[in-house]
Amino acid sequence: MRKLINTADTIVDDMLAGYVTAHSDRVALTTNHRVLVRTEKKSAGKVSLIIGNGSGHEPIAMGWVGQGLLDGNVVGEIFAAPSASMILEGIKAVDAGGGVVVLISSHSGDIINGEAAIEDALDLGIDARPLLMYDDISSAPKGREDERRGAPGTTFVYKILGGAAEEGQEIDSLLSLGERVRDGTRTLGVAVAPGISPLTGKPMFDLLENQIFIGMGVHGEPGLGQRAMGPIQDIVDEMMGLILDDLPFKGGDNVIPFINGSGGTTLMELLIVYKEVSRCLTEKAISISKPLVAEMVTTQEMAGFSISLLKSDEEMERLWLAPCSAPYFHL
Amino acid sequence: MRKLINTADTIVDDMLAGYVTAHSDRVALTTNHRVLVRTEKKSAGKVSLIIGNGSGHEPIAMGWVGQGLLDGNVVGEIFAAPSASMILEGIKAVDAGGGVVVLISSHSGDIINGEAAIEDALDLGIDARPLLMYDDISSAPKGREDERRGAPGTTFVYKILGGAAEEGQEIDSLLSLGERVRDGTRTLGVAVAPGISPLTGKPMFDLLENQIFIGMGVHGEPGLGQRAMGPIQDIVDEMMGLILDDLPFKGGDNVIPFINGSGGTTLMELLIVYKEVSRCLTEKAISISKPLVAEMVTTQEMAGFSISLLKSDEEMERLWLAPCSAPYFHL
Repeated sequence: MRKLINTADTIVDDMLAGYVTAHSDRVALTTNHRVLVRTEKKSAGKVSLIIGNGSGHEPIAMGWVGQGLLDGNVVGEIFAAPSASMILEGIKAVDAGGGVVVLISSHSGDIINGEAAIEDALDLGIDARPLLMYDDISSAPKGREDERRGAPGTTFVYKILGGAAEEGQEIDSLLSLGERVRDGTRTLGVAVAPGISPLTGKPMFDLLENQIFIGMGVHGEPGLGQRAMGPIQDIVDEMMGLILDDLPFKGGDNVIPFINGSGGTTLMELLIVYKEVSRCLTEKAISISKPLVAEMVTTQEMAGFSISLLKSDEEMERLWLAPCSAPYFHL
Repeated sequence: MRKLINTADTIVDDMLAGYVTAHSDRVALTTNHRVLVRTEKKSAGKVSLIIGNGSGHEPIAMGWVGQGLLDGNVVGEIFAAPSASMILEGIKAVDAGGGVVVLISSHSGDIINGEAAIEDALDLGIDARPLLMYDDISSAPKGREDERRGAPGTTFVYKILGGAAEEGQEIDSLLSLGERVRDGTRTLGVAVAPGISPLTGKPMFDLLENQIFIGMGVHGEPGLGQRAMGPIQDIVDEMMGLILDDLPFKGGDNVIPFINGSGGTTLMELLIVYKEVSRCLTEKAISISKPLVAEMVTTQEMAGFSISLLKSDEEMERLWLAPCSAPYFHL
């Protein structure tokens, strides 16, 4: 076991204790030890945003709780969705009277527990609404987008809806904006080496050496297949071909790119990937807004990355750049 | 070779191309393809800050170029200091008339080339001054601090001097502040697994499984020895004992902590480390300012971390929190 932990049983609570101690200016736990909220609650009447997710993917989602971003995060065990009752506690904690958008990344446990929590919240008179998010083009074919998995591109929704909610947009308008962001986002990832489970100390799955696994999900879910390692410009060309064709993105469009590192890939490599992504977009006469190039949605120290593109409009671009203050979001 | 690159020869230029494309709002290359500067030059008459360093440790130092931080970074080859003539180009590019502080992390190549560049700059009439930085307590015993290596704690100097220079402090005052920050900083790191060289595709050094290497430098330099892996609270207790005794830090002091990830250690683990560091400080009645807990000074995907503590005063604390805008600094 090479993980720097106390015991496997205390990982999540120890991590959260460190997190709220380091960032007490922005985040706190409620009386529920797995419900993380903004230190300064959103103004009365505005809509709040919350998401529940398994741990092990840090800094997402807890690192994006803060002003102009998420109002709360319900933190599950390692790679396991939090329970419906915990999500309900989160919804109650963040509601400021304007309703609560419950962001749900499309994975079965997250959907079942998120929807159950929303039903219970509605019974309590809280205007809670689900927003199902999916973006991974490798997980279901074109035409069946709503069967796709949630992948790193779902975080466009966090930031853009976070900005809109802070400005005071109402819940129906937010849900409509969130659907537009989701429907304009496409993501494809690759994996090169597995992460190590903090529970067992063993690699989370087996990957062949010198192979690139295309479309592997954030828990090692199968993707489109594998290819030999080669120059990154060829790998990016292949990925960009699939991504651009899927929406499709066309000359004259504007996109916001997000190059996400899976945990064990260096910033050096992510920046080289971005160079090649930028080249592909420019070749197609697609214009580019300020990108995010960082490790945000990780699978422990898995080596790999994903490319997410959002076909953006002026409102999305403005909200992408809108002021916010969360411990681990920085453009 | 699992690295996501084009060829080993083009890594640094490809990385820089991606970096200045992604962050053109803040950074640009000069006509010298390895001299990175702020897009918006510092106001005339103020002091500028620059550092040269080998690549492979990203986001440091290029990621901290921006308003209120570094004015320039001279980027060497992988793990190799840039030449004196390149550093001279950097000094000339960032000088705004108030003189240039050349930050030098204590490693032999950086010292030789940095000092040669300063001599040449003086000949050109630029008021260039060296500030030698060292903080790694494992690299020379107490009493011989100036023989120690530069380690992640040197970055306290970047941020605090960056803030002071932006405010308009003059060069003698900046150098004196920089020495106080250096002399109040102590760092100790541990390594758990090696990084992979992007030049060879091979592990950079051999480490035994289930062992922690205490005091290993950012290039695998030898440290204080090794111990068996164990609960992180015990490892942190051992490290904190050595760090606190070295300055020494005492009850009633205030410190700024920086927990740096070496590249292949998750944020989950770094936050657990911070929980234990915070506990140790509180037990000693040492008060704590806003910490930095992030991967900043990396050695590719090496697993491990370092603890840096700065015994701070009010001026340092104010400047640590002063506004700044660089692509990869965020508190």
